[in-house]
Amino acid sequence: MRIEIICIGDELLIGQTINTNASWLGQTFSSIGAQVVKSSCIADDKNEIISALNHVSEGIHAVIITGGLGPTKDDITKHTLCEYFNTELEIHAPTLEKIQAFFAARNRPMLESNNLQAALPKDCTILTNNYGTAAGMWFEKNGLIYISLPGVPYEMKGIISEEVVPRFQERFQLNSIYHKTALTQGLGESFLAEKIKDWEEALKVQKLSLAYLPSPGIVKLRITSFKGQRDALLIDRYMSELNLLIPEYFYGFDDDTLPSVIGGILKEKRKTVGTVESCTSGLLASQLTSIPGSSAYFLGSILSYSNDLKMNLVGVKKDTLEKFGAVSEQTAIEMADAGRKILGVDFCISTTGIAGPDGGSVEKPVGLVWIGISSENGTFAKKYRFGDHRERNILMTILSAQNLLRLNL
Amino acid sequence: MRIEIICIGDELLIGQTINTNASWLGQTFSSIGAQVVKSSCIADDKNEIISALNHVSEGIHAVIITGGLGPTKDDITKHTLCEYFNTELEIHAPTLEKIQAFFAARNRPMLESNNLQAALPKDCTILTNNYGTAAGMWFEKNGLIYISLPGVPYEMKGIISEEVVPRFQERFQLNSIYHKTALTQGLGESFLAEKIKDWEEALKVQKLSLAYLPSPGIVKLRITSFKGQRDALLIDRYMSELNLLIPEYFYGFDDDTLPSVIGGILKEKRKTVGTVESCTSGLLASQLTSIPGSSAYFLGSILSYSNDLKMNLVGVKKDTLEKFGAVSEQTAIEMADAGRKILGVDFCISTTGIAGPDGGSVEKPVGLVWIGISSENGTFAKKYRFGDHRERNILMTILSAQNLLRLNL
Repeated sequence: MRIEIICIGDELLIGQTINTNASWLGQTFSSIGAQVVKSSCIADDKNEIISALNHVSEGIHAVIITGGLGPTKDDITKHTLCEYFNTELEIHAPTLEKIQAFFAARNRPMLESNNLQAALPKDCTILTNNYGTAAGMWFEKNGLIYISLPGVPYEMKGIISEEVVPRFQERFQLNSIYHKTALTQGLGESFLAEKIKDWEEALKVQKLSLAYLPSPGIVKLRITSFKGQRDALLIDRYMSELNLLIPEYFYGFDDDTLPSVIGGILKEKRKTVGTVESCTSGLLASQLTSIPGSSAYFLGSILSYSNDLKMNLVGVKKDTLEKFGAVSEQTAIEMADAGRKILGVDFCISTTGIAGPDGGSVEKPVGLVWIGISSENGTFAKKYRFGDHRERNILMTILSAQNLLRLNL
Repeated sequence: MRIEIICIGDELLIGQTINTNASWLGQTFSSIGAQVVKSSCIADDKNEIISALNHVSEGIHAVIITGGLGPTKDDITKHTLCEYFNTELEIHAPTLEKIQAFFAARNRPMLESNNLQAALPKDCTILTNNYGTAAGMWFEKNGLIYISLPGVPYEMKGIISEEVVPRFQERFQLNSIYHKTALTQGLGESFLAEKIKDWEEALKVQKLSLAYLPSPGIVKLRITSFKGQRDALLIDRYMSELNLLIPEYFYGFDDDTLPSVIGGILKEKRKTVGTVESCTSGLLASQLTSIPGSSAYFLGSILSYSNDLKMNLVGVKKDTLEKFGAVSEQTAIEMADAGRKILGVDFCISTTGIAGPDGGSVEKPVGLVWIGISSENGTFAKKYRFGDHRERNILMTILSAQNLLRLNL
C-alpha cells in the first residue's frame, strides 16, 4: 500500500512550526506495512490544494491531507474539497451533537464558528474525532482514497489510530515491514562503511537493506526487512556479528541512548558515577541525569571552568596547571582522580578541552580535548581531536566521554 | 522570489528523522523576504528525484534540494542530477584540496569514498562547504536555479548562510520585510495579551502587525512591517513603551537569549557568577557558558544531586536538611550563600526542586521549585510552582532562574 501525505499550512512553510505530523504518519504507516512514498507541505490556498490533489504520484492508494480544518475563518480545506469532489456542505447531526457535548463537558460557551464545524461534505464518510471538534473526512474518487484530517497533532493522531488504520488493515493486504537499528558512536560514516563492508554484502545476499543515518558523533545503521517479523531472528544474528566487528563503537539498538545504556549497566552493577567538567560545561552531567531514576547512580558533579576552581575546589596541583596547562593529559587525570574522591563515586569522568572559537594555539588547537576516567582500576585520559565548531566540539566531547565510560564500566 | 524545497531521504518518509531542515529553510528565506511556496520529502530513488524535478510548481525561481550527498554508496542524488542536467562528474580540484585538508587537520586517513566526494558535476557552480566534505551544487536550466545540498543540518545551514543567501540577495529584488521581536519570560500568552492590549491596539493603528510566538516559559512578540527599514524608528519607539509596561518580563530582542543578556550585564559590571544546582542538573550552568567569552564571568558550578554532597561539598547544614528538607527556602538560601563563597563569585544562583515524575508529596508536590540568589547585597530564595512534566519543569526552572538573576544584577 502506497500513501502520499499533503500537509496544509503557511506556518509549516515559513518554518514557524516543525512538521512533526509527517514524521509521525511515516512511523505509523511503516509500522503497519504501508509505505509513505511522498509528503509535501503547501500553503493555505485553494489553488495550491487543488494543484496538489491533481498531481498525486503514480500508484498511490491513499492521500492523507492534514491541516486547514478548525474553527477559525481562514480555513479553506473543507470548501476546496467540496469543490474538488463536486459535493456540498450539510450539517452532520451526530457531529453537531458531539461538538455540543464537547463544549458542555468543558463548561464553555459555543460560538457560531463551532456550530459550523458540523457542516461537512455530503458525499464522504465522516471519521469521528474523539479529541476535538473538527471531524475527519474520507472521500473516494477514481479508486483513490482521500482522507482529510485536522492539523492539531493530538486530534490527527487520534483519528488515524482509531478510524484510519483499522480501515486500511481491513481493506489492504499489508506487507509487514520490520526495522532494527544499531547505534554506533565514534566512527565516521565512511570509516564505518569500510570496516563493515563484508558484513553489509552478506546482508544484501539475504535481501535485507541497510541505511546509514549519520548525525554528529553518531551513525545509526538501520536494517529493513520486507518479510516482517519472520526475519527478526536473522537480523538479530547479523546484529550479533556486527557487535563482534565493532564492539568499541556499537552501543545499543533503536531507542537506546548512551545515557540510558550507561544507566542500565551502573544500576545492574550497583556502581555510582559523577563528573568533573570543564569544556562540556555541565552538559555531560545533565545528560546522564536526564534518565528517570538516575539519582540511584548519579551523585553529583563539579564544573570547574576557572583554573582557580580546578586548584581550590577540585585539587588539581598548581604545578600541573603551570607545567602542562589546563588542557592536558595530566590535568584530565587529576580532575578525574580527585573528583572520584570528592564526589564519593565509583567512576568519575573529566573533560578539559578547547571548544573554541577562541583559546586555540599551534600546539593546542581549537578542537583538542582530553577525557579522563577514574575508577578503582586506576585513572587514565584519552586525547581527541575534533573540529572548529564550538557546539559540535562540545557535543562530540559529551558523546565520546559517554562511550569511553561505557567501555570502561 | 518564490522557492520550492525538495528533501530527499527515506528516513524522513518513514519518520525516523523529523524534517527540521525544511522549517529552518522556511524561516531563513522568510527572513530575507523570499517565500517558500512548497516543500516535499521524497525517497532516495532516482525516478522519484527526476519526477520531483519535472513537477516543480509554476512561478518558482529556485529549487533547494537537500539530502543524498555523502560519502557512502547509497547516495544517488549526484548521479541523478548529472543525468538530469546532462553533464558528468569530474574531480573538482579545490574541493579535493579542502577534503584533504579536512582530514589532515583531524589527523585521520582518507578513504577512496572521501576522494570521490570531490567528483562533482562539470556544469554547475560549486558551493563551498566549510563544515564537511560534501560540496553544494548550483545548476541553472531554463531560467530556474536548482541548488543541491547535503542533508546534514549543520552543513546545509552553513552553505545556505554563506553561499546561497548572499547570491539570492544580489540577484533578486527581495521585498523588504522588517521584523523586530521582543522577548519575554515569565508570563503566559493570555496574561501577556491582557497586560499589553492597549499597546497592541496602538500598533494596529500604525498598520504594524503583531504575532505572539509562545514556547514553554517564553513568549516572543514579533512586530512586522511591510514598509521595511522605514518603520524601524517607529517600531523602536513601541518597543521602548513595551519595556516600560512589562520590565520584569521583557529581557531582550531578536536573537538575544537570557544567557547572552546576563553575560552582557556581567561583563559591563565586571562581576562573576556561578551556580549550585540540584533539580536543573547542570543545565543552568551549561546555558550560561554557551556564550562565547563566558569564561570572563562564569567561574564554575557544583551539581549536588545527593544530600551527602549538599552537606559535604556545598556545606548545607545537616540540621537544615532534616528540619526543612532538600526542597525548601532554607536549603536554597544555604546553597546559594555557600556557593558564592566556595566558587568565589559575586553572584551565585541555586536551584532545588521536585522535577518529577516521582518524589512529590501533598506538602511538596511535583513542580515545586525554590531558586536562590546570593550576592553582596544578601541572599534570598523565591518559590515557583510549575506543572507535572519533568522536562518542562526543568526548563521553566532554568528560565526563571536566569530571569531572576537578570533582575537582581
